[in-house]
Amino acid sequence: MKQNTIDRLISLFSKLPGIGKKSAGRITYHILDSNPALAQAFAKELSGLHQVIKRCGICGSFTETDPCYVCSDSDRDHSLICVVENAQDIRVIEDGREFSGVYHVLGGLIAPLEGISPANLSIDKLISRICNTQVKELILALNPTVEGDTTALYLQKILKDFNVDISRLASGMPVGGNIEYIDKLTLSRSFRGRVKI
Amino acid sequence: MKQNTIDRLISLFSKLPGIGKKSAGRITYHILDSNPALAQAFAKELSGLHQVIKRCGICGSFTETDPCYVCSDSDRDHSLICVVENAQDIRVIEDGREFSGVYHVLGGLIAPLEGISPANLSIDKLISRICNTQVKELILALNPTVEGDTTALYLQKILKDFNVDISRLASGMPVGGNIEYIDKLTLSRSFRGRVKI
Repeated sequence: MKQNTIDRLISLFSKLPGIGKKSAGRITYHILDSNPALAQAFAKELSGLHQVIKRCGICGSFTETDPCYVCSDSDRDHSLICVVENAQDIRVIEDGREFSGVYHVLGGLIAPLEGISPANLSIDKLISRICNTQVKELILALNPTVEGDTTALYLQKILKDFNVDISRLASGMPVGGNIEYIDKLTLSRSFRGRVKI
Repeated sequence: MKQNTIDRLISLFSKLPGIGKKSAGRITYHILDSNPALAQAFAKELSGLHQVIKRCGICGSFTETDPCYVCSDSDRDHSLICVVENAQDIRVIEDGREFSGVYHVLGGLIAPLEGISPANLSIDKLISRICNTQVKELILALNPTVEGDTTALYLQKILKDFNVDISRLASGMPVGGNIEYIDKLTLSRSFRGRVKI
């Protein structure tokens, strides 16, 4: 079968995260079988995507307006910054409706083996935010992985001379989890981070 | 968060088969993070999709040329028709490079509970192909499910007066499978369909 529109679309879909060649085929044929309006809606949203969506000049998240709706909201606590790896994490935290401060997107985590050093992350911008605005507390909402731990440690080290409290999200057993099936590292963190009741 | 471009794109992606809301978010942010060329390539392929891809007038598969490359290939055996549920199945069979005949897409399987009756399938067209061309054999490549079995039985019944051999793909243990983990129905079919060696 020579490379045609269907092949090209399948190969595009299989470049997306979590989509293999089989799923890409299933998706492509689903779109072909569906009302052409679905393909048109996709084409419309995607063709203008990078014109419409920009990075917020303050926090670095994706937004249609600059600054983003979080950074421009005066009801939020601008002295409390939640530091996240990427813009998608903001969405998850916003869905939780727990956090009332503002965000800062690092744009990755320190990973020497993948060639990501502190210079590749938006750390200078974070420091200038701390210097120029009345930031009192940083919450590091970074994944509890080797890269997340390394990045948290690095931030803690370079920010120790600034008058700002730094904390990190609690790591331990997920709600509804079962001690029997929990891995050793998570169990060890749960012990170390135990909470007095 | 109000409904914006990102939300709309996530909701579009979550309409695709096998993609939940979380995956849709991950995919959308991946595209945002990627080179704008990726979004543009998607937009380009999808905007013209239904103009470029049509149904083949003979077999019913998706194609850019009518008839499709299989139906217009004189090297293939046009007296041997492989009957499939949908156009995607043709792709899988073609990848196997085992079959040298032509195809016929039914466009579904008989499923009374879902309101799909024989009248909804491309059965009349199959009969007219059998009547008008020198068809000697039909291979029913239908899923070994209740719907596939029903459809195979129905086709066998209405085609019994035509001078055409009808067979169905063998059902049994997959290659590399383990008898210990095989379900009862598959094992039973493997016994009934045992092959003399």
